[in-house]
Amino acid sequence: MSIESTIVKMAKEARAASMEIARCSSNKKNEVLLKIADKIESRATHIQEENQKDLALAKEMGLSDAMMDRLTVTDATVTSMAKGLREVSLLDDPVGSKSKSWLRPNGLEVSRMRIPLGVIGIIYESRPNVTIDAAGLCLKAGNAVILRGGSEALHSNQALAGIISRALAETGLPAKAVQVVPIRDRDAVTVLLSQEEFIDLIIPRGGEGLIRFVVENSTIPVLKHYKGVCHVYVDDGADLKMAQNICFNAKVQRPGVCNSMETLLVHRSISREFLTKMAQRFVKAGVEIRGCPETCRILPDARKADPADWPEEYLDLILAVKIVEDMDQAVSHIARYGSSHTEAIVTSDYERARRFVRDVDSSVVLVNASTRFNDGGELGLGAEIGISTSKLHAFGPMGVEELTTTKFVVFGDGQIRT
Amino acid sequence: MSIESTIVKMAKEARAASMEIARCSSNKKNEVLLKIADKIESRATHIQEENQKDLALAKEMGLSDAMMDRLTVTDATVTSMAKGLREVSLLDDPVGSKSKSWLRPNGLEVSRMRIPLGVIGIIYESRPNVTIDAAGLCLKAGNAVILRGGSEALHSNQALAGIISRALAETGLPAKAVQVVPIRDRDAVTVLLSQEEFIDLIIPRGGEGLIRFVVENSTIPVLKHYKGVCHVYVDDGADLKMAQNICFNAKVQRPGVCNSMETLLVHRSISREFLTKMAQRFVKAGVEIRGCPETCRILPDARKADPADWPEEYLDLILAVKIVEDMDQAVSHIARYGSSHTEAIVTSDYERARRFVRDVDSSVVLVNASTRFNDGGELGLGAEIGISTSKLHAFGPMGVEELTTTKFVVFGDGQIRT
Repeated sequence: MSIESTIVKMAKEARAASMEIARCSSNKKNEVLLKIADKIESRATHIQEENQKDLALAKEMGLSDAMMDRLTVTDATVTSMAKGLREVSLLDDPVGSKSKSWLRPNGLEVSRMRIPLGVIGIIYESRPNVTIDAAGLCLKAGNAVILRGGSEALHSNQALAGIISRALAETGLPAKAVQVVPIRDRDAVTVLLSQEEFIDLIIPRGGEGLIRFVVENSTIPVLKHYKGVCHVYVDDGADLKMAQNICFNAKVQRPGVCNSMETLLVHRSISREFLTKMAQRFVKAGVEIRGCPETCRILPDARKADPADWPEEYLDLILAVKIVEDMDQAVSHIARYGSSHTEAIVTSDYERARRFVRDVDSSVVLVNASTRFNDGGELGLGAEIGISTSKLHAFGPMGVEELTTTKFVVFGDGQIRT
Repeated sequence: MSIESTIVKMAKEARAASMEIARCSSNKKNEVLLKIADKIESRATHIQEENQKDLALAKEMGLSDAMMDRLTVTDATVTSMAKGLREVSLLDDPVGSKSKSWLRPNGLEVSRMRIPLGVIGIIYESRPNVTIDAAGLCLKAGNAVILRGGSEALHSNQALAGIISRALAETGLPAKAVQVVPIRDRDAVTVLLSQEEFIDLIIPRGGEGLIRFVVENSTIPVLKHYKGVCHVYVDDGADLKMAQNICFNAKVQRPGVCNSMETLLVHRSISREFLTKMAQRFVKAGVEIRGCPETCRILPDARKADPADWPEEYLDLILAVKIVEDMDQAVSHIARYGSSHTEAIVTSDYERARRFVRDVDSSVVLVNASTRFNDGGELGLGAEIGISTSKLHAFGPMGVEELTTTKFVVFGDGQIRT
């Protein structure tokens, strides 16, 4: 069968399966999630054997250590996948709930009912655990899902997909509700992205290159974020001890993730006092500072920032630092160089706290807290399927509810339009 | 200036203006809307003179009467544009409201704040009144907007845009918050659709050809509906008098719009009694019936439907009729041939009313009411910018709230992630 007909067949089968999953009770969906969790544990040896095949091929192909690391299914990966599914089974089921209901003057009773999106395509790289995390969340929200992981993880992903399909079938649900694309060729992705008739949403997860490829080739709506250039602004009059802790946490706790701080903006009036102490802590933690000219006068060891530093997502122990005259200048800097991802202010001023929150156009805006809290789990959404920095449908971390939509339900007793 | 640089400049200016409009109070926004309404009335002669230029050109180009009709700005059009703006000024402003707020175990206070989308691009055909309706709704929701109407309406649209810009400037708001693309060449649309950096949403309004062109060429998210193939299912045991009124209203009241009925599905047990009387009313109103073989046995004058009739959007006094064995067969028919737009059941059965509402995957599902109620105004959203049949962001009629999104706002007192 050609790539095209394989993908079209998968998409059609997913659409058919989605209708059954959409009508499925919460109890049934949770039963499947728990069954998959049990099977992942009982079939751990099989999964890891298949993973070894991927690792052997990856070694031949000369993948980097970091890539090999992400590809490996350790005992801890197995435990964490099973635990994740059990947690998702405990979340509230958004499907069928009505958030609002109102009566029209003519007696029509109108409400919005939450429903699954339908079929979701997930396109991602390396990590086989994404296969389980994404499938679990999509099923919980009543969706069918087509998973296209990195070609280097194909054996692992197919082993996991086999387990999911069996669990679905044993629960009396359509096995095709979760499918892994069995084709290594990238053309499979292009064909997938044109199945607008059968697929409702594409979520790409990975590097900026992958995401741009998906956006440019998809006629299906895409939820994504390109990058996280997150800022912390330390205001005049801020609690400088608190500011130090927040900035240190935002930069150092896990520098390689999208919600870590990349640029620090400091009000001029407290810049000398704050930066002198802050820099000592950063330098001790191995953070390289790239400063504006004023910063470099205060911190003579800092490297001079060049224009390319301001929009840069380092994902590393590097930090750009700029001294600003006031909050407005900080907000303008963020509007110009930020990525609408996560921004924080440290302040003790009531008016500026309120204004920062209103004026900064990012998916998560924080007052006196670390940027690292932009995360579905940390903000209370339960698990997350990703973070969106485009505004349509979802802006910020996406949990189970963001994998649903609403339809209008109208009850009448014979109303017609005049 | 080239087409590309003109459009890019417009998009950048719209982005800058959007930041000011986003922060603007409801009072200020309503002031602008009322001022535009007043100016439309006081400058009616100028608008109609410019409209005459379009009409003269259109006549030369040999546009159809229907097109000429939609292009004409009559006195009634002027009145209705002004009235529409005054109504929008009375709607609640969604911006800044927080629908939910919760406390995390670590003391973080999390909420979702409603914010404007940013910059919206509207691509539409002929009708100059869309320029005012769309601009009014976008401004109310705090967005900047770029309008690209049909090239045959350019003089009219520029006259209207001039009025809006002056009203904005007189109110102290950025004139570039509403802009009309001054270029007739279709390349302008292609360039507009690639300004992902500056534009947050594209809404195409018009025929299926225009909408497909937009979806295929846009890297910006698109909200749209292709067509409305709406069904009414008359159930066993339905109140047949009510069913007649609803079906007649759904087909005949305004056959040329997307929420009119295109296919009638009838339960076999009541088909003879119902269709005999219904057909008399339809025939008297000039409705042509295209029936399944069973329908044609009951209605010998009906034309036989062929397979192309079931997915057809007639937008005319033509109706496809099919007799089904039960509700499940009706639901399957809708799933196969429907367009996820609007579906209604006429029934007196409690269980089937509930199940139809759950199982039918359309943006508006009605029980005992006409499909013609799929409309923002009728369902209580105030004015509407369009109807979406894709599920992301909005499914069904879109009002002011659907022109906004939410961001997460987090208040802390020094929380860091551990």
